[in-house]
Amino acid sequence: MNRQSGAILVLSGPSGAGKSSLIQKIKDQIGPIYFSISTTTRPIREGEVDGVHYYFVGVEEFKRDIEDEMFLEYAVVHGNYYGTSLGPVKKALKEGKLVIFDIDVQGHDAVQNRLSDITTSVFITTPSLEELKRRLYNRSTDSEEVILGRIEMAKREVQRISEYDFLIVNDNLEEAAEILVSIAKAARMKIPTFQINEFVQTWEAS
Amino acid sequence: MNRQSGAILVLSGPSGAGKSSLIQKIKDQIGPIYFSISTTTRPIREGEVDGVHYYFVGVEEFKRDIEDEMFLEYAVVHGNYYGTSLGPVKKALKEGKLVIFDIDVQGHDAVQNRLSDITTSVFITTPSLEELKRRLYNRSTDSEEVILGRIEMAKREVQRISEYDFLIVNDNLEEAAEILVSIAKAARMKIPTFQINEFVQTWEAS
Repeated sequence: MNRQSGAILVLSGPSGAGKSSLIQKIKDQIGPIYFSISTTTRPIREGEVDGVHYYFVGVEEFKRDIEDEMFLEYAVVHGNYYGTSLGPVKKALKEGKLVIFDIDVQGHDAVQNRLSDITTSVFITTPSLEELKRRLYNRSTDSEEVILGRIEMAKREVQRISEYDFLIVNDNLEEAAEILVSIAKAARMKIPTFQINEFVQTWEAS
Repeated sequence: MNRQSGAILVLSGPSGAGKSSLIQKIKDQIGPIYFSISTTTRPIREGEVDGVHYYFVGVEEFKRDIEDEMFLEYAVVHGNYYGTSLGPVKKALKEGKLVIFDIDVQGHDAVQNRLSDITTSVFITTPSLEELKRRLYNRSTDSEEVILGRIEMAKREVQRISEYDFLIVNDNLEEAAEILVSIAKAARMKIPTFQINEFVQTWEAS
């Protein structure tokens, strides 16, 4: 029964902590994964691809999906809807994949509430706030306003690190990647409660 | 701050599930460990070495240590005391080691109550009760009475698998070892709450 079921790995942490680089670095070392793609109502930007960066949908469709309980979690940010559709997640879990979420603290909350028995969560951050600021300003893809927003959000989010199973301080990408590989491999071994109950029942009978 | 602190890995499961073989197989692949040695008042048996298989002590000394709160957990089994002394565990944690416990469900309970933030637990079992019986009778080191006792205990313990973080069904030693290596490496990354609080405080200040 080992390895047969899918599981969930939640990654949270400030923009600038290196989540994307880490995922790129480890994705070939941890077995079959499905990287969850969010659904959003915000307009598509230049260079973005529908179904790769986001699923882009209209507000009406999004609201209908909310009513039909098609979202694992959703939120409104700056007037736009963002959510995680249940369908692809369920499919990937059935295929035994490790479903990876790059979501914020609120999203983590929602996943824990519904799927805690198969979820492992990791908070990834820089060694310090100063280092986060340095990285955000250096990559200079964002406006001053966006950067300040990210910093404020980071300050709020680090207050909730203890809600996570693991903390990775990304001051060395090689080391952080090695740690994340171990966590991801272990995360895959989490077994849903109903399967454990089933196992216990058949264990004695057999 | 990654990797600086020690952590705990609890292994439980029926005698005959292959815990000892698994530990032997993985012990060189998971970094510095301290394998917790129990203290007992039961008489030393032929081939056993004090400080290797157990710390053998007198009943008076054991009771004094109970009063002095020197045990992480203890129990009375068949009239003999068995316990885990706190001293060596604390020392190993300070040295950043992964402390491995081979203890029963009650022992796991006690460890979770006191050190849940740095503890990862794994229940290891055979694919079936029948297979457990086969293994216990085949190794024929125990009397019929002891084997029946182990079977009864196994039946009780599997009922509590859901209290563990992970379940390993040991039907293939290679595969089970590979899984346990991932879990052990991840287990080492659990960070105590007080260190997280400390980190969050200094993160903003720096």
